Amino acid sequence: MSESQVRNVLSALEGKTFDQLYFVACGGSSALMYSSKFFADQHSKNMNTDCYNANEFIYLAPAALGESSLVIVCSQEGKTPETLAAARFAKERGATVIALAMHPGTPLELASDHFVLYGYYNTAPAIDTSYGSVFMLTAGILEQREGTPLFEGMVKNLTAATPVIKTAIEHFRPQANEFAQACKDAKILYSLASGPDYSQSYVFCYCYMMEMQWINAIPIHAGEFFHGPFEIIEKNSPVVLLMGRSSTRYLEERALVFCKKYTDKLFTIDTKEVDFQNIDESYHDVVALLVLNNVCRLFSQTIAVVRDHSLDIRRYMNLVEY
Amino acid sequence: MSESQVRNVLSALEGKTFDQLYFVACGGSSALMYSSKFFADQHSKNMNTDCYNANEFIYLAPAALGESSLVIVCSQEGKTPETLAAARFAKERGATVIALAMHPGTPLELASDHFVLYGYYNTAPAIDTSYGSVFMLTAGILEQREGTPLFEGMVKNLTAATPVIKTAIEHFRPQANEFAQACKDAKILYSLASGPDYSQSYVFCYCYMMEMQWINAIPIHAGEFFHGPFEIIEKNSPVVLLMGRSSTRYLEERALVFCKKYTDKLFTIDTKEVDFQNIDESYHDVVALLVLNNVCRLFSQTIAVVRDHSLDIRRYMNLVEY
Repeated sequence: MSESQVRNVLSALEGKTFDQLYFVACGGSSALMYSSKFFADQHSKNMNTDCYNANEFIYLAPAALGESSLVIVCSQEGKTPETLAAARFAKERGATVIALAMHPGTPLELASDHFVLYGYYNTAPAIDTSYGSVFMLTAGILEQREGTPLFEGMVKNLTAATPVIKTAIEHFRPQANEFAQACKDAKILYSLASGPDYSQSYVFCYCYMMEMQWINAIPIHAGEFFHGPFEIIEKNSPVVLLMGRSSTRYLEERALVFCKKYTDKLFTIDTKEVDFQNIDESYHDVVALLVLNNVCRLFSQTIAVVRDHSLDIRRYMNLVEY
Repeated sequence: MSESQVRNVLSALEGKTFDQLYFVACGGSSALMYSSKFFADQHSKNMNTDCYNANEFIYLAPAALGESSLVIVCSQEGKTPETLAAARFAKERGATVIALAMHPGTPLELASDHFVLYGYYNTAPAIDTSYGSVFMLTAGILEQREGTPLFEGMVKNLTAATPVIKTAIEHFRPQANEFAQACKDAKILYSLASGPDYSQSYVFCYCYMMEMQWINAIPIHAGEFFHGPFEIIEKNSPVVLLMGRSSTRYLEERALVFCKKYTDKLFTIDTKEVDFQNIDESYHDVVALLVLNNVCRLFSQTIAVVRDHSLDIRRYMNLVEY
């Protein structure tokens, strides 16, 4: 589904030269962009890439934004007001805008030049999810701009990712249960990661824990951890450490050594415990990110059941004016 | 002091064309870079600018890093191992490296092409601090690359900033006392900001509170707040809201309206309460950032006294191996 739509978008872009690639969204959709921004940094010599919260993007108004800019916006329902406004703002500035949403015909699609429909993370194959779609788009755009083959490899490996993710979910189920039991009454917890994986600490803390469980949770970049925040760690501090397979994995390994020593409540989601069968090594980082996303969701679903606090309860979002 | 050194660096760079500007550091030095990255985004059409934790920078290894790159590194003592390694890594890749430190002759200076000495935030004029020095460098580099006059205005307004900061510190002293009394036993607090000011929420939470007070504190981008984390806010949730004078101030104003309604423990540091005498309007955002930095430090010094917990106590940093 998404693959053919992404191919259509890439065909339409062919022959044009873009110098900036902006990832713009809010909340969970913003977090997913962050991992593609990392991928772009690793592969792009000629494009300026950046990732912004939608309102920050509008009010900051990057000086470079213009006709040579490509802007990717994403919103599950396709109607997040700030993201919609960001798409319109980018269009006014002459940029080309690609929208992603889980429904066709939304205001976001109508405000944009190109559109990719994605599927629900829980039922769609990995390649058809929001993460899969943004990774494909990014790989295709970079291949066009930089001349490096990235797109077909991305498609092949995202296609092979679904069984790996399923295996990972089963593998980490006991850890999810252990986490849920140990942290069901926690007043505060921490999540550490680096590189693309940091996006998952971000979404785990700000969305799955704070928004959906009303548990205080602090995402900490594993490299920054040692320059301040690690001082808070005590023997009973709950830490969810994410270990992906990106080039920055060493930062997570360093955090592991420290946390093993100084807290008894460490929950490590190490993607190296899972067999990455049929995944090419150069895409291990991308597939590991998808694994982490799904396992973080499993952790939150499990603790939600144990706490009898549905992930869907809100006190403000779409209920009061703000 | 710093001004003449920055002028020397800029003279040495004259005639060279750089396409990337990387800000690379750890912890508090990394946070201060973030506000200059914002300034660069607002003024740079032709340079790719990014801000990285030093180890993330090395292990990510941006594809664009090379002879056309300028890398600014900063470390107070000039010997942070990751920042030193990042300077060496950038040099190996052919980049030009500018180091900043509070002492001359450090390993970081020796590993770099150019050096700027800065003064202690508490005793040096604003223009001579780390913040002032990085702002001056950034303005000068952008002026050379983009042809827009930015440098002399920056020097003039940073020079005029010191009395504004002093006035602000006196103005916010009662609020600092109120914050310290109200939050001395807090288990958790939040800090909100947007744009360049987010750097101060970052350093306030991760460094001043978590590292130096062992108080849990969550920095939340004011734009992202409404897409998840605001669900955690209750009537007794302590929130330190930073309100600068950047183009993203609207995001902070929106957070203000919400927080006023839903928590009784809101502490607002609004730089518009201070007279910005002799500051040109186009540099209000920069000077507001310096004000926020100094007032956040005042808040932390005040709570440290009330809690009888010195800002200098550590349990791990430079005491154990990590």
